[in-house]
Amino acid sequence: MHRTKVTVAEGVLDANETIALANRADFDDAGVRVVNLMSAPGAGKTTLLERVLEDGLPGPPGTDGPRVGVLEGDVQGSIDAERISALHVPVTQLNTDPGFGGECHLDANMVRSALPAVPLGEIDLLVIENVGNLVCPAEFRVGEDARAMVSSVTEGEDKPLKYPLMFRTCELVVVNKIDLLPHLDFCVEDFLGNLQRVNPGVPHMLVSARTGEGIDSFAGWLAGIAAREPVPR
Amino acid sequence: MHRTKVTVAEGVLDANETIALANRADFDDAGVRVVNLMSAPGAGKTTLLERVLEDGLPGPPGTDGPRVGVLEGDVQGSIDAERISALHVPVTQLNTDPGFGGECHLDANMVRSALPAVPLGEIDLLVIENVGNLVCPAEFRVGEDARAMVSSVTEGEDKPLKYPLMFRTCELVVVNKIDLLPHLDFCVEDFLGNLQRVNPGVPHMLVSARTGEGIDSFAGWLAGIAAREPVPR
Repeated sequence: MHRTKVTVAEGVLDANETIALANRADFDDAGVRVVNLMSAPGAGKTTLLERVLEDGLPGPPGTDGPRVGVLEGDVQGSIDAERISALHVPVTQLNTDPGFGGECHLDANMVRSALPAVPLGEIDLLVIENVGNLVCPAEFRVGEDARAMVSSVTEGEDKPLKYPLMFRTCELVVVNKIDLLPHLDFCVEDFLGNLQRVNPGVPHMLVSARTGEGIDSFAGWLAGIAAREPVPR
Repeated sequence: MHRTKVTVAEGVLDANETIALANRADFDDAGVRVVNLMSAPGAGKTTLLERVLEDGLPGPPGTDGPRVGVLEGDVQGSIDAERISALHVPVTQLNTDPGFGGECHLDANMVRSALPAVPLGEIDLLVIENVGNLVCPAEFRVGEDARAMVSSVTEGEDKPLKYPLMFRTCELVVVNKIDLLPHLDFCVEDFLGNLQRVNPGVPHMLVSARTGEGIDSFAGWLAGIAAREPVPR
């Protein structure tokens, strides 16, 4: 049985890759760059987005910053989408609960099914907020240009070692909730050492979505992705 | 493609149920009760177990408490197993990384494969610490008598609404890290209200694995499970 299951999984991943490329083609045609934002449940992805979208992303001097849209992935409900839409940012809710008792991740086909509801002509950057999970979201590309993850200091220093694929597959790690550091037994150096072991050289940012500390760096990073040339297909 | 995938998933769940019953039979024959302990990554399952195992579980007056063993489920590594084994409790590590780039949950077959390494004759209660994930672990029974989950106050009040199956499938919700409440915008009443919406009447405990507050309640709950009669098969 185990071998059969693995074969099925590989088939699913191959099919996923094909659809992810189709998504990429649609994003590129629309001139939209895409960030896949991932984390464990409750690490603060939505609050982080609220913070950066309140003021908008920075643009070159004298110009507006890039226009952002959000695709919210959740097993069930639309709590996060309602929070984001309050900021007058176009937001699309994508629920995974029709599949398998609630899929634990977004895949390329789910994102594809949501694309007709995403106003690609009105945005420059689409942030896809994935389902809160440190395992499977890392296995499914959805057509993104870049992946970022949020790791909260309340989760402990060992997370890069326990969920290495997630930390390895991202090009930015946002370390959130640093306002709580005085109240935790969390050693930032130990965490960063573990991060370097699984993804040497990956950039990180220390932020507090709650107080706003470090948020400008993340806003600048998103603006940088929006200004990127598309990767040749 | 989507329909095919769901069919496969249902087949997997049927097969899982059969193996879970076989696990239950083996546990019952050995007189061992089993708790499936679940949470998001970094909610504090291992620290909670360390706290209760340091002093052992309570027994009837004049007798020793139940003997506990731990089965540690992780995608990769043995960090938690090493922490638990320092307390001289029999611990078995079960890694999920051979499957599908790292399975995001334990299933009955994985637990079955680990049983030869679990000293069932020397324990009264086996605590299975599942992979940190609020979605898929809830879908796979592994042969447990009871399910408990740990939800950290740092994760936000909305988690029962966003991951309803997990909160609905447990008979105890341990609300951890309450020592951090003074430093968070977390409303305990709102969380408990959301919990009641998805699992009316489920018991909860407010604890801090860090300070030890409320830990006796969880130790008593575990001892109660160990003293339960097996559910007739």
